Amino acid sequence: MNKTDLVYHIRRKRSFLCVGLDADLDKIPKHLLAYKDPVFEFNKRVIDATKDACVAYKPNIAFYECLGNKGWESLEKTLDYIPDTHFTIADAKRADIGNTSRKYARAFFEHFDFDAVTIAPYMGSDSVLPFLEYEGKWVILLALTSNKGSRDFQFLESSGKPLYQSVMETAQSWGTPDNLMFVTGATHPEKFKELRQIAPDNFFLVPGIGAQGGDLKAVMKYGMNEEVGLLINSSRGIIYAGGDSTDFEQQVGAAARDLQGMMVF
Amino acid sequence: MNKTDLVYHIRRKRSFLCVGLDADLDKIPKHLLAYKDPVFEFNKRVIDATKDACVAYKPNIAFYECLGNKGWESLEKTLDYIPDTHFTIADAKRADIGNTSRKYARAFFEHFDFDAVTIAPYMGSDSVLPFLEYEGKWVILLALTSNKGSRDFQFLESSGKPLYQSVMETAQSWGTPDNLMFVTGATHPEKFKELRQIAPDNFFLVPGIGAQGGDLKAVMKYGMNEEVGLLINSSRGIIYAGGDSTDFEQQVGAAARDLQGMMVF
Repeated sequence: MNKTDLVYHIRRKRSFLCVGLDADLDKIPKHLLAYKDPVFEFNKRVIDATKDACVAYKPNIAFYECLGNKGWESLEKTLDYIPDTHFTIADAKRADIGNTSRKYARAFFEHFDFDAVTIAPYMGSDSVLPFLEYEGKWVILLALTSNKGSRDFQFLESSGKPLYQSVMETAQSWGTPDNLMFVTGATHPEKFKELRQIAPDNFFLVPGIGAQGGDLKAVMKYGMNEEVGLLINSSRGIIYAGGDSTDFEQQVGAAARDLQGMMVF
Repeated sequence: MNKTDLVYHIRRKRSFLCVGLDADLDKIPKHLLAYKDPVFEFNKRVIDATKDACVAYKPNIAFYECLGNKGWESLEKTLDYIPDTHFTIADAKRADIGNTSRKYARAFFEHFDFDAVTIAPYMGSDSVLPFLEYEGKWVILLALTSNKGSRDFQFLESSGKPLYQSVMETAQSWGTPDNLMFVTGATHPEKFKELRQIAPDNFFLVPGIGAQGGDLKAVMKYGMNEEVGLLINSSRGIIYAGGDSTDFEQQVGAAARDLQGMMVF
């Protein structure tokens, strides 16, 4: 999906919500465990309950990889089930030397047909460029992440610039706002004015709302640009909103609509 | 495998060679494509040909992930086939928020039973610690990588220290030389004296010999410590040494023995 279409869906739906499909067998409603593929059954119900309130889905690949072959099957079926009107993100945080990154790009853009993949910047240009070579596909590069460990290295200053800034500035010479987004965590709301100055035109994928405690209002106030420019992700806060109940889909849908309702633009 | 056993195998075999099992369907000998699982058939022959000359095997996960379910099956069979006397490394370069890194740790240490996994440091402590919590397992953290893109961010200086140094120093408060190694690329041979000073007791996994043009002699001269402290990886230089020939195993074995022969200690 290209940027024009993404912005179209955001405006039409009045939503820039991304739902994180991080199905965990220990946490999904117990009645689903009787099915042959409980992860897919859960995702299917979550997608049905949230698709009118969100514009994107983001399976975190770790939750599938830890289940081995069965997990990859669940992921394939989930991808097939997501409507074409929704932007799909493989939250994989991959990157390797160029020769190897090409294989990861093939995995996520060819074997699966994701629109975007999250990428870790540490290994630099040749680890990222193979993903950007795919026409119509996106890199979402880690810049300032939402977790506690983001404070270990991402704020280290070099020539007066924190590492996340160097990453965002350098990466803008690799890609354009049409194929490059950044991950910027909602747990650093005070930084969004600065982040938007560093990358005025790129979309930000914003995790950290909900379970991680981020601040949606501050993110919207300082993070939006003329094309909205934000995808706000919530995973646990939405998909587990219904707990163990047999009609958990009701609360899942309500949680998504609640977040959508806060998106004023 | 713990450090005592790893050092025992290194000394007994007079080898600290790691063979990278990066099987690529476009590059393996064509006669193997007739088999049901060409990747496994190739790996099996490479393992048979090299196991007396090396102490470790390192499948790069990208090469399996890009094949979907079939790739994961090939990887499982390959892991089962590697003798218990050999240290196994999942070259995965993973890391995510703590909650998610736990899933990756489960994938590589429980679903598969790898001894070690390579980890990207950008997301900091909580992205790495879940891997270190596994008794008897290892984290191999990216420090100074072998690729061209290593120059983009890893040399950025903060308080007079390049980023790779900050990573290596900080990570030594997370793990010990008994569960933490660093990736240090052979394409930066002039840095090994300094790298060894930063982490005197940790093993280094050294890629970049062979296809990437690294300098083995300089790495050995400055990188060794009293427990040897090095695992030198070669992937393409060994596994594709036999080209398309039906008895490619001969040259694969010879290439491994050639590298082993250069390991004087």
